[in-house]
Amino acid sequence: MSILVFGHKNPDTDTICSAIAYAELKGKLGKDVKAVRLGEVNEETKFVLNYFKVEKPELIESVSGKEIMLVDHNERTQTADGFEEAKVLELVDHHRISNFNVDEPLYVRMEPVGCTATIILKLFKENNLLPAPTTAGLMLSAIISDTLLFKSPTCTECDVKAGKELAEIAGVNIEEYGLEMLKAGTDLGGKSESELINMDMKIFEVDGSKIGVAQVNTVNEAELLERKEKLLVEINNIIKKEGLKFFIFAITNILSNDSTGIVAGDGNAIIEKAFNEKIDNNLIALKGIVSRKKQIIPPLTKAIQEA
Amino acid sequence: MSILVFGHKNPDTDTICSAIAYAELKGKLGKDVKAVRLGEVNEETKFVLNYFKVEKPELIESVSGKEIMLVDHNERTQTADGFEEAKVLELVDHHRISNFNVDEPLYVRMEPVGCTATIILKLFKENNLLPAPTTAGLMLSAIISDTLLFKSPTCTECDVKAGKELAEIAGVNIEEYGLEMLKAGTDLGGKSESELINMDMKIFEVDGSKIGVAQVNTVNEAELLERKEKLLVEINNIIKKEGLKFFIFAITNILSNDSTGIVAGDGNAIIEKAFNEKIDNNLIALKGIVSRKKQIIPPLTKAIQEA
Repeated sequence: MSILVFGHKNPDTDTICSAIAYAELKGKLGKDVKAVRLGEVNEETKFVLNYFKVEKPELIESVSGKEIMLVDHNERTQTADGFEEAKVLELVDHHRISNFNVDEPLYVRMEPVGCTATIILKLFKENNLLPAPTTAGLMLSAIISDTLLFKSPTCTECDVKAGKELAEIAGVNIEEYGLEMLKAGTDLGGKSESELINMDMKIFEVDGSKIGVAQVNTVNEAELLERKEKLLVEINNIIKKEGLKFFIFAITNILSNDSTGIVAGDGNAIIEKAFNEKIDNNLIALKGIVSRKKQIIPPLTKAIQEA
Repeated sequence: MSILVFGHKNPDTDTICSAIAYAELKGKLGKDVKAVRLGEVNEETKFVLNYFKVEKPELIESVSGKEIMLVDHNERTQTADGFEEAKVLELVDHHRISNFNVDEPLYVRMEPVGCTATIILKLFKENNLLPAPTTAGLMLSAIISDTLLFKSPTCTECDVKAGKELAEIAGVNIEEYGLEMLKAGTDLGGKSESELINMDMKIFEVDGSKIGVAQVNTVNEAELLERKEKLLVEINNIIKKEGLKFFIFAITNILSNDSTGIVAGDGNAIIEKAFNEKIDNNLIALKGIVSRKKQIIPPLTKAIQEA
């Protein structure tokens, strides 16, 4: 039975592409590892898989009874159903460690870099290997996606260096390809409110409270803000269903590198304190904020812990 | 201000020696990192530091406000006071991950090997460096200690290989030095009951219950079992003070590679189920069991979760 490797629920480009790349690396090292996914791929990832002509990984419901490897996530709320009944062999990630509890020692590689694929390239090289050109293209796409073409504050020198190396292996022009890819990800036209919010939603647990933070990239936030009332209905449904304390839906403009948050639930005081900004009519300006991991979760966590 | 690197409370040889070795590695890479300790060094570690003429690291009370690196542990119950007010930069460990929550991404290297020092040697080599001969001696001692001279089921090929390389750098005979060192650690003559239990005690949290597991190595378990009643008084004090569900004090014979457990608290059914062995008069036979990490904690965790 193959070992399964996968990223988080509501998969993004890094989660899908890093799972595929890690399965390739493990295969080259003689292990039977298969990339799978925990949800539908988004528009950006579809563009990437289509561009490099790679099949999307198989969708799985539960990992109960399986041997598993995690990439691009570790928190219990973001991982597969059946996690407690699986055996976790490895973890490669670039997020904080939180609510990740296992019974036995495992192999872990984590670095505070912008993208999981950057760490995976390092692991290829430590084993004197390189990814295949199409896999390099996927890994480059993951880095472009996670760092917004090297502009996010999460982006490190390592990510830039890895991106350049991967572009060379894949034979693509980073700037041209990158903009085309990011724009494909902002094609939100046909999406329902529920789809928009679920595209890249994560649930975090802080001091016993669950909070939801979704993010969407756009070049035209006005067309999303027009739909605020309908988005709020959907957000309130999720709050009820998941038992969340509050929810932030961050609409990020990838050209201006600012965000606007649509907020709901019982967290206004905490959110205002976290970002030192007033909430007006369920909206909060998040100036210069593009990274959930580096600029949204840490101040929220701090504000909750101090509340 | 130096970055502090340290292992767990109730330090053992791996915790002390890996902190010293990691500080040396970081120093060679240009960082100002200082090894410290969270408690008194045990007899075995004293022998090691004395043999290689290395000063014991400074004792610290709290890490509040500091930048820190953790080696040889990650669980909240085993780390420094003030952890929540510190900034965790790095983690190098070979234990399960449990109750370790941080707000921001960090650098992590974990491998399911027998000893932290084995991972640290790998990190030296990845940076084209080697530890100084005395440091290599300390790292070898850590491996001998954690693997009971390569005999524990936690011992991997990597540990054996690292041990041989380190012995060469340090210029010591593994077998001769190793037995002498392990015997020095079993010199329990002058110890009070409280000292015996605290020598290598760790507290674990499983499903909201705190349990204590202490271990001591000996070549003569009879002389410890004679003191059972007094040891039980001390164990019950710790249960009360720390709010533990139950406690196991494992007396491990390093020649026969079996243990006997002295148990107290409210966990007999769980403990009997975990080890498939009856408790008689607060004693349980733990045949073939020498590793707390691999042979005691996993079955206990499973039994608690299924209870």
